[in-house]
Amino acid sequence: MRLSHYFLPTLKENPGEAQIVSHRLMLRTGMIFQASSGIYAWLPMGRRVLRKIEQIVREEQDRAGAQEILMPTIQSADLWRESGRYDAYGEEMLRIADRHEREMLYSPTAEELVTDIARKHIKSYRDVPKMMYQIQWKFRDEIRPRFGVMRGREFLMKDCYSFDLDYEGALVSYRKMLEAYIKTFSRMGLTAIPVKADSGAIGGDLSQEFQVLAATGESLIFYDRALDEIVRQGGVVDVDRLMSLYAAEEGLHDPHICKVPQDQLKTARGIEVGHIFYFATKYSDPFKASVVGKNGESITLHMGSYGIGVSRLVGALIEANHDENGIIWPEAVAPFTVGLLNLKPGDGKCDALCEDIYHKLLTQKVEVLYDDRNERAGAKFANMDLIGLPWQIRVGARTLETGKIEIKYRRTGEIQELSLESALNYLKERVGA
Amino acid sequence: MRLSHYFLPTLKENPGEAQIVSHRLMLRTGMIFQASSGIYAWLPMGRRVLRKIEQIVREEQDRAGAQEILMPTIQSADLWRESGRYDAYGEEMLRIADRHEREMLYSPTAEELVTDIARKHIKSYRDVPKMMYQIQWKFRDEIRPRFGVMRGREFLMKDCYSFDLDYEGALVSYRKMLEAYIKTFSRMGLTAIPVKADSGAIGGDLSQEFQVLAATGESLIFYDRALDEIVRQGGVVDVDRLMSLYAAEEGLHDPHICKVPQDQLKTARGIEVGHIFYFATKYSDPFKASVVGKNGESITLHMGSYGIGVSRLVGALIEANHDENGIIWPEAVAPFTVGLLNLKPGDGKCDALCEDIYHKLLTQKVEVLYDDRNERAGAKFANMDLIGLPWQIRVGARTLETGKIEIKYRRTGEIQELSLESALNYLKERVGA
Repeated sequence: MRLSHYFLPTLKENPGEAQIVSHRLMLRTGMIFQASSGIYAWLPMGRRVLRKIEQIVREEQDRAGAQEILMPTIQSADLWRESGRYDAYGEEMLRIADRHEREMLYSPTAEELVTDIARKHIKSYRDVPKMMYQIQWKFRDEIRPRFGVMRGREFLMKDCYSFDLDYEGALVSYRKMLEAYIKTFSRMGLTAIPVKADSGAIGGDLSQEFQVLAATGESLIFYDRALDEIVRQGGVVDVDRLMSLYAAEEGLHDPHICKVPQDQLKTARGIEVGHIFYFATKYSDPFKASVVGKNGESITLHMGSYGIGVSRLVGALIEANHDENGIIWPEAVAPFTVGLLNLKPGDGKCDALCEDIYHKLLTQKVEVLYDDRNERAGAKFANMDLIGLPWQIRVGARTLETGKIEIKYRRTGEIQELSLESALNYLKERVGA
Repeated sequence: MRLSHYFLPTLKENPGEAQIVSHRLMLRTGMIFQASSGIYAWLPMGRRVLRKIEQIVREEQDRAGAQEILMPTIQSADLWRESGRYDAYGEEMLRIADRHEREMLYSPTAEELVTDIARKHIKSYRDVPKMMYQIQWKFRDEIRPRFGVMRGREFLMKDCYSFDLDYEGALVSYRKMLEAYIKTFSRMGLTAIPVKADSGAIGGDLSQEFQVLAATGESLIFYDRALDEIVRQGGVVDVDRLMSLYAAEEGLHDPHICKVPQDQLKTARGIEVGHIFYFATKYSDPFKASVVGKNGESITLHMGSYGIGVSRLVGALIEANHDENGIIWPEAVAPFTVGLLNLKPGDGKCDALCEDIYHKLLTQKVEVLYDDRNERAGAKFANMDLIGLPWQIRVGARTLETGKIEIKYRRTGEIQELSLESALNYLKERVGA
């Protein structure tokens, strides 16, 4: 993509309304556009990051054996009366009357509808276990939306639901999702600690939240430092070990129960990006979602639900990956892998060299944003650091003299001077393109 | 995917409420689940088809130079008052009051919001041309929703918007989209004729609808038969020729103006799946969306908008591709390319052979649905014809005797007996995997 053509409306000044760094940087880099209070449009660079995150989430859900579905955003109030949540939910639920004055609502989560699907279509013990997920927009009418996409009203969520015959089956599903979550966040370059969680409005007992470590996090968490390693490496996850290690949010942390030696207990701030929990027959009971067992008996389904805040993750990623100059994207979720800077635009030789590099990268399937604009080198450096692509290739007067181009790695700031060929080979190896 | 594990709740009987074949077949094959009147959940097979369509649409939009964004579903009424459409839209608009009693609505289209983005971020003549698109859920509160996803209330739409300095620029954008649409529908195996269209509620003069030919189509269209070939082949599109050829819907067809010789004028039924149009400064005027020109002058942007009914296309594809036994998916949008039928489940040799074929296909990156269920051969044949995967591989008693497997091509019903190796090679060539 050529930057001269790309719709990337960066701001020179810090927007006044943004209180936290991710919100500020998302507005400054033109990733989002505020449409209403707590409601954002995603501009091209924001959309690209969102799609990369969606895709990683989808791949790991699929790998865990969950099947993708898509439920509507507008749902009937009647369905939510069956669970009792229509009245319980309060003002956070966006309630709507359609043209026939039927009561509808904008789905804030989807236990009711997925249980309705299950009771109508999952009939036999042979039909379970089943896990179904969707990546769909949700709405919660926060009284005071803030922090940009971190606490917006309209937000993108991955929600998965499991159906099993009993507690033992549900535990297997739960553990699969736990593992999928570790892999998902690890692929994004995040350290996300699963901590014991309050089951909240939905209820249940087996319940963990995933907290992304970031100095700016809203919660304080206490955890066994052995967790760090497990969650970072992803790969083969030792679920037994993982579940045996202590981790709790401040409100649930009890020094009397916590057996982790003091020198092994870490304290850190975290941002909640996911939540997994088992809630037994909380919904299947009122919905009469049951299957026929081997001997003709009726078995009420045991369910769990598993959420990831997909749009929130964009904010969390930035909170965990930035410096004073801007964003530092982990490679797996970067909008582009390489930023190519033409430092002498208008110079025939420099333009030709940049075009050549641009096309070589495209041929190698490297995602590249080519800054071909007629701007000063200093402005281009600052802009590229701000938007935070992992790699920068700088081509200018010196390149024409020495034949060498500069490659900068945004995360460390390290700059290497290499011949064009070595540079492309180096990137090929590092980027794996 | 193993069918024993897949959530594919097919129905034995035709659902009574479905009046048209696509609705009937989508319910029977468990692609969708009706959640409310005109509102559907997409179950795994439906979701897969929807994603394939989305991806083709996205690729052709990107290729045409449009950039993907994503606008929120819930928008402020104030924005829609600026264009005058808040009052004009009538009861089809789903109106909502949030917890602070602010007037909001569920976006039925997005000219207002995209023009708001443009006026705030497109400032200079150097920033145009720009085309931006999204693939996002919309809501229109149809008084009598029917025909399944063909006329639902919540539906998935690709909407693209172009911004240019003048009519000439806008015409270039319009022609790019026209070409992108021809390629998009042609890749899906559809014959979609661009016909002269009424500009409808949005207004303008350069306006064409894309009508997919299907015997069950709701509109009658008249067109030069030379159009058939151009739109079917996709490839390099001769836009001048395309725009010179006559095509009009019944209401706009005028035999006195139509100069196509009688023997070259075709009449057919069509289903509208897309609409492209130029509407000049209809929105940019009231929104004051203008840029600064070369000489410092203010230039009001010329806009066009370009829609594709993505969820509707699933219905249209089935209307145009089915027989009395079920759906016949074009390969590019098929949920799976191959259905593998184990006709002797439980037989050790047959199971092992099927597993071997299943894994070979997966290794070749062929999307395969493996019917490993304990069902009669007849039921498996009927089910596989019903869900309409392009290719069937049948493995049974005869295979164990002769070493040959049967390959059936769903569209023609043609069956070939081949050795396993020849069969895989044949598929590899035909499917291009």
